[in-house]
Amino acid sequence: MSGKTNPGNFFEDFEIGQELVHATPRTVTEGETALYTALYGGRFALQSADRAAQDIGYPGAPIDDWLVFHIVFGKTVPDVSLNAVANLGYAQGRFLLPVYPGDTLSATSTVIGLKENSNGKTGTVYVNSVGRNQEGRIVLDYCRWVMIRKRDESAPAPEPVVPDLPDRVDPATLAAPGVDLADYDPRVIGQPHRFGDYKVGEKIDHVDGVTIEEAEHMMATRLYQNTAKVHFNQHTEGEGRFGRRLVYGGHIISLARGLSYNGLAPAMWIAAINAGGHTAPCFAGDTVYAWSEILETADLDGPLGALRIRTVACKNGNAAEFPYMGDDGKYARGVVLDLDYWALIAK
Amino acid sequence: MSGKTNPGNFFEDFEIGQELVHATPRTVTEGETALYTALYGGRFALQSADRAAQDIGYPGAPIDDWLVFHIVFGKTVPDVSLNAVANLGYAQGRFLLPVYPGDTLSATSTVIGLKENSNGKTGTVYVNSVGRNQEGRIVLDYCRWVMIRKRDESAPAPEPVVPDLPDRVDPATLAAPGVDLADYDPRVIGQPHRFGDYKVGEKIDHVDGVTIEEAEHMMATRLYQNTAKVHFNQHTEGEGRFGRRLVYGGHIISLARGLSYNGLAPAMWIAAINAGGHTAPCFAGDTVYAWSEILETADLDGPLGALRIRTVACKNGNAAEFPYMGDDGKYARGVVLDLDYWALIAK
Amino acid sequence: MSGKTNPGNFFEDFEIGQELVHATPRTVTEGETALYTALYGGRFALQSADRAAQDIGYPGAPIDDWLVFHIVFGKTVPDVSLNAVANLGYAQGRFLLPVYPGDTLSATSTVIGLKENSNGKTGTVYVNSVGRNQEGRIVLDYCRWVMIRKRDESAPAPEPVVPDLPDRVDPATLAAPGVDLADYDPRVIGQPHRFGDYKVGEKIDHVDGVTIEEAEHMMATRLYQNTAKVHFNQHTEGEGRFGRRLVYGGHIISLARGLSYNGLAPAMWIAAINAGGHTAPCFAGDTVYAWSEILETADLDGPLGALRIRTVACKNGNAAEFPYMGDDGKYARGVVLDLDYWALIAK
Repeated sequence: MSGKTNPGNFFEDFEIGQELVHATPRTVTEGETALYTALYGGRFALQSADRAAQDIGYPGAPIDDWLVFHIVFGKTVPDVSLNAVANLGYAQGRFLLPVYPGDTLSATSTVIGLKENSNGKTGTVYVNSVGRNQEGRIVLDYCRWVMIRKRDESAPAPEPVVPDLPDRVDPATLAAPGVDLADYDPRVIGQPHRFGDYKVGEKIDHVDGVTIEEAEHMMATRLYQNTAKVHFNQHTEGEGRFGRRLVYGGHIISLARGLSYNGLAPAMWIAAINAGGHTAPCFAGDTVYAWSEILETADLDGPLGALRIRTVACKNGNAAEFPYMGDDGKYARGVVLDLDYWALIAK
Repeated sequence: MSGKTNPGNFFEDFEIGQELVHATPRTVTEGETALYTALYGGRFALQSADRAAQDIGYPGAPIDDWLVFHIVFGKTVPDVSLNAVANLGYAQGRFLLPVYPGDTLSATSTVIGLKENSNGKTGTVYVNSVGRNQEGRIVLDYCRWVMIRKRDESAPAPEPVVPDLPDRVDPATLAAPGVDLADYDPRVIGQPHRFGDYKVGEKIDHVDGVTIEEAEHMMATRLYQNTAKVHFNQHTEGEGRFGRRLVYGGHIISLARGLSYNGLAPAMWIAAINAGGHTAPCFAGDTVYAWSEILETADLDGPLGALRIRTVACKNGNAAEFPYMGDDGKYARGVVLDLDYWALIAK
Repeated sequence: MSGKTNPGNFFEDFEIGQELVHATPRTVTEGETALYTALYGGRFALQSADRAAQDIGYPGAPIDDWLVFHIVFGKTVPDVSLNAVANLGYAQGRFLLPVYPGDTLSATSTVIGLKENSNGKTGTVYVNSVGRNQEGRIVLDYCRWVMIRKRDESAPAPEPVVPDLPDRVDPATLAAPGVDLADYDPRVIGQPHRFGDYKVGEKIDHVDGVTIEEAEHMMATRLYQNTAKVHFNQHTEGEGRFGRRLVYGGHIISLARGLSYNGLAPAMWIAAINAGGHTAPCFAGDTVYAWSEILETADLDGPLGALRIRTVACKNGNAAEFPYMGDDGKYARGVVLDLDYWALIAK
């Protein structure tokens, strides 16, 4: 090793309050949007057409919220999770400003928690990651915690600090500034239902399934400049735990979001991420299905309401019976994603 | 089912004169053009370079005609053909205005014919589909007919209405407004031949073959926001008629068009679709070849002439012997596309 | 054959001084950049973000240098190498001007050398290829030599002319006009090292490996409008020498360049190509690794220095032991690329 390559940070390299400035800002363009459509087939009107966006108060179609998330997330990987054993969770994610083609995103993270595991080999690192546009304004803010290897098992454990992360974002803080529904046309959106038509406890099977290909998940993950090794190298992964390349968890989030158009077409704004878990690995050849449940509703000021949605993705079996969790608290076989978020919808 | 997902229309849901407003308008950008190039390798100068387009009277390179077709077609799928058994044919397709990066396309369809099949299980629906730009101007207009399942076999048959669709578009109606060939350079186009060099009956083997990959046809079909299930879900298709995912017929049209550059490079404008049939299914792993025959020529006013071309795609065997149809009227083994269209070319 | 398809040039079709005007100019856009990122995962800051580029004196992020190379190269294929047996080498390649989204590239080549092989079946053709932007200004200039089949083995051999091609570009001729490092921030670049930190003889293992998929190399090669048959047709290649499709050598260059970010992140400018060889074929399923050696350094006027770098790609075995060449002058097993180039880096 020449000392010029990045070995990533190990558990003992992190300290509370440390700020990580992530490299390689990224200009997001219509090119990214086209590829994102080709990868996930999104049909949400707001993100698909300038005209549809202008009809509801936007200057043009914004970049898909999850594409913004994946790009910001990708920037954090070399500094936060290159030596991760597992991505454990998300909380307090908020999409604060729309991102438009031509905007440049950059990311920083602050270490907000550290807890060594009792085995002395790994520890949990909590970070608050922030994505900003070229004006320095925050577009996305979220917390994530990951289990990271120690470089040296004999290194002393830090004083444990576990941040108090609420289990959901307060809906009173949600907003989609500038929205004006005077010209809202449900035929353009593709579904007539509005805020009041969704009830707590309602479950929606998104019906369709989509099979993952190696070329697709690798192109997606590179589009996000996410270089975690496990996604790309069959030569080493073939000898590893699963015998093959692991699909980036965010790819499953976007597949599930794409499928969820069928039933949630009017829920065009992702406003917040309450919690999320990648509950089982996915591989090329797997077919992903999704279903959603309305967990909570919140009537916001202005023309939009908020739906708190759990979207569950499962694989190689459809979602018609809403597979989720057993009485023992274990996820049902085939469940690969448990995502809890707020989406906004016309009232 | 929550009643919020789209089950698609069944045969008895259609009635003569019914207008379908298709959801999700789409802004088409340079991103779509780049992906289209990556998927089909197009080398037609007009669509490849702003400068080449400007040299012949355009403000810049227009979006490929077939990309426009596929996007408009994709919008019709959820309302027209989600319950289709077969896509039976096209007629009277006309490309009326160029589409440029930044234009937003939307689509509507009108039901122009209905005929129940004698088995009482299915019927043929004829629609006239229209794609418009953000100014409401028609860019593409075509008829298509599909065989659709009935939801309830006991539903009464409608009065049969079969539209009278001419077997070709009248060349007197074809035009490419604004074309000015003062700076036309055959070296830029890649081939010296002009209108007068193509003779009726002439056949051209386009020589090359290209193998289809799952990731490619799925990315293409999603790029068109076409969500027909059979293209994406190996989990169910593996149990189905073919045991695998079916390639969208439009993907084959675009592969054949890409191959046809070799011999038809100056035929840069697709002006009309006379007829088209997807004569056999294609799957990943198939290698597609193409050949063309000049069926008719028409000398138009202005600098362009029209060639009526039959392009035939075949698979897993080259096109050197122009495989087409036997004396029994059946397509030769391996023929997957029979497309009859008008293209314009410099005189 | 109708006489309208391009059979390519054979050895006896070339003559010294002949100028080839290559067809199909190409406008390069943000769409191409997004796809290039998805294919190679590039993280060099200059090419990734308008803001990062503006901070060092550019109007916005330029198109990746190798993407420019591949597009210019692709244009030359139908006229130069359609009947090539082997791509033998490169020399005197210089990147002279940045290319920006919206620029239109066109290409010409001049025949500068010819030498028939003693077997009378093939000969070497040397060309100087030049890529220009829409203003006619040269953006890329390079020499390449290829072995081409004769159409007619009895055709007389031309007088041999072998150009005198220096084994490296003179660093005194290298420049990156307009660069201003007043706002250069190593945290944005992702690595603190500067010109003076790299020493002649230093070797860097770029650590990661990436597995090639059929869909990816075909989409890349079509993105470059490179139609060499061996990359696309499994039906014929399955019967050929390797039993499968051959990956375009330029795809390996770009994979290696993408991997080289890890250790060469500040070497953001490719200024010149000294030499290059595709030393063994690559196929889908191969996993590519890369390492680099600093061959020479040159302190330029202005804020940048030049590193002469050898980047070696190898497959299906990592690069930790820097596999290269044996004492017998033969490349070690697994070495697929030997590339010698100048990159510029902040002093």
